[in-house]
This record gives sequence, C-alpha cells and structure tokens, in this order.
Amino acid sequence: MRALLAFRPEIAPALSAFTNELMHAPNTLTPAERELIAARVSHLNDCAFCRESHAAIAVCHLDGEERLVASVVADPEAAPISGKLRALLALAGRVQQGGRAVGDGDVARARAEGATDREIHDTVLIAAAFCMFNRYVDGLAAWTPTDPDVYRQRARLTAEHGYTASPVR
Amino acid sequence: MRALLAFRPEIAPALSAFTNELMHAPNTLTPAERELIAARVSHLNDCAFCRESHAAIAVCHLDGEERLVASVVADPEAAPISGKLRALLALAGRVQQGGRAVGDGDVARARAEGATDREIHDTVLIAAAFCMFNRYVDGLAAWTPTDPDVYRQRARLTAEHGYTASPVR
Repeated sequence: MRALLAFRPEIAPALSAFTNELMHAPNTLTPAERELIAARVSHLNDCAFCRESHAAIAVCHLDGEERLVASVVADPEAAPISGKLRALLALAGRVQQGGRAVGDGDVARARAEGATDREIHDTVLIAAAFCMFNRYVDGLAAWTPTDPDVYRQRARLTAEHGYTASPVR
Repeated sequence: MRALLAFRPEIAPALSAFTNELMHAPNTLTPAERELIAARVSHLNDCAFCRESHAAIAVCHLDGEERLVASVVADPEAAPISGKLRALLALAGRVQQGGRAVGDGDVARARAEGATDREIHDTVLIAAAFCMFNRYVDGLAAWTPTDPDVYRQRARLTAEHGYTASPVR
C-alpha cells in the first residue's frame, strides 16, 4: 500500500484516516472482529496480501490464536465464534458479491443475533472498503511478500498503533 | 450517502476528503473523465444511484452533453472519445471485475494511448473506490430517487464545489 500511495501523497492522509476510524478507533465491534471481517472479504476477493496482512493483525488482537483466525477466514459458519460475528461475516460475504446481493434476511439475521444498526452499517462499510483495497492492491499488481514474518512484524505495529502512524497499513 | 454517513459522523470527513482529492482536485485527468469512469463502474455494478449521480456530474462538466455521457456509460468502446479515455475505461472495467482480472495488456494499452503512470494509478483507484461506494449504497438499500431533477440539482453543486462542501456528494 505504501509503494502504491507514493504515487499520490495528496490522497494518502485521508485514506489512512478513513481506515483508522473504521478499523482501529473505539467501536462496539472489537478490533479483532473488524480485522476478521477484513481478512474474510480479502480471502473471498482472492487478495493474498490483504488476507495475510489482516489475518495477522487479528492474531495480534487475539493473543496469538492463529488456528482460530484461519478457521474464521476459511469458513465462518463452522468457526467457534459468536452468533453475532458469524451473522456479520455472512453479511460481509454478501457485500463482497455485490451491493444488490444483500437481502433483508441477511440484515434480519444479524439483528436477531444482537447486532446494532451501527454494527450492521460498519460491517457493510468494512466489507465494501476491502472490495476497494483488494482491487487497488491486485489491480496494480503490488509486490506480495511470501515470508509470513513480514506480515507478523507489520501486524504488531498496526495492532498497537493503528493505521495513521504510517501511510495506510 | 448523507443519510448513511449520519450513522458515522466520525468517518464522513475523511471519506469526503478522499473522494474530493480523487474526483475533484486538480489532475491531468479532467473532472469529466473521472466522473465518466465513476459512472461506468457504477453501471457495471448495477448501482443506479451512483450511476445517475456521477453521469449527471459529468454532464455538468461537459456543458450538457447528455447523449455523449449516456453513450460512454453504456458502451465506451463505441463512444466518440479519445483513445486514452477509452483504454482507461476498459482498465476500470477490469478492476470492477476484480483486482486479479487486470492484465499487463490492459495497462500496456493505456500506456500506448498516452496515459501516464499516475493516470493509470488514479483510474484503478477510482474504479476500486466505486466498487466500495456502490456496495455501501446498495448494501444498505439506500433510498434511490427516481426523479432526474434530483440528480441534476445535486450534480451542479458537486461539479462546482466538489465533494467536501457537504458530506460526500
């Protein structure tokens, strides 16, 4: 992301602030829940860079629970998580398919599991935002590191300091 | 967009600033060219609200050329536009399909038609951003006005003042 945004230093601050507010700022959705939504959508969009980056940040927020994070990213319906998060991940999966794929039933399920209107709003916006980030990264054929340590190191910094300390992630 | 962002006044300013920098700030891509890319991607995503909004803004920038704008949105390859804009619209269409749908040939075609690296970067980011906005609007089933005058009135304001005078568009 840094290399890409080097083309447009005018745009980077606003995009960083947006990402930080959405992903890192105080929210009734925990940072781990938001990162899991980001990693799941990135997985559905087949964007390895974003999936690995945000899965690693989720692991940081969940004290190293790598296996749990991998199971959520691969198959949220079968993962040992709350009914609310499972419903929000299903909603995010619909958004990934397209805005018109979201049905009243998807929102009703999230509400029935205890999600608030703001949590539903934020889930849709996080999923939509990663449909942007994933296309931005892969559309410009960004270099995708294959060494997991790269993701772990960056993830620790982002989990602690958020998205504004350095240009978006 | 305004009604949706009312849920999250913390997020609106950063998203407005990002949109204004991308769509309205000085750029070697004209405002009309950027709005046509936005309207075309929204059309491909079947998001009527964004398509009509941004087509109307493009018409403002093009002194009322409604028929030209409609032809670009419907079929850029057949529209009477520059080879560069045609290539950038084709690139945007690939991004709409997914980041991995973009091939070296798409970028090579844009370069051969005279597009700079920054113009290619911005086209990918505009297309990706509308894959977010379209999902945000339709995913939350926003009210979609059917009266074209609504779009024309708002479009004039946005064409003149950009995206930051009021919360995003």
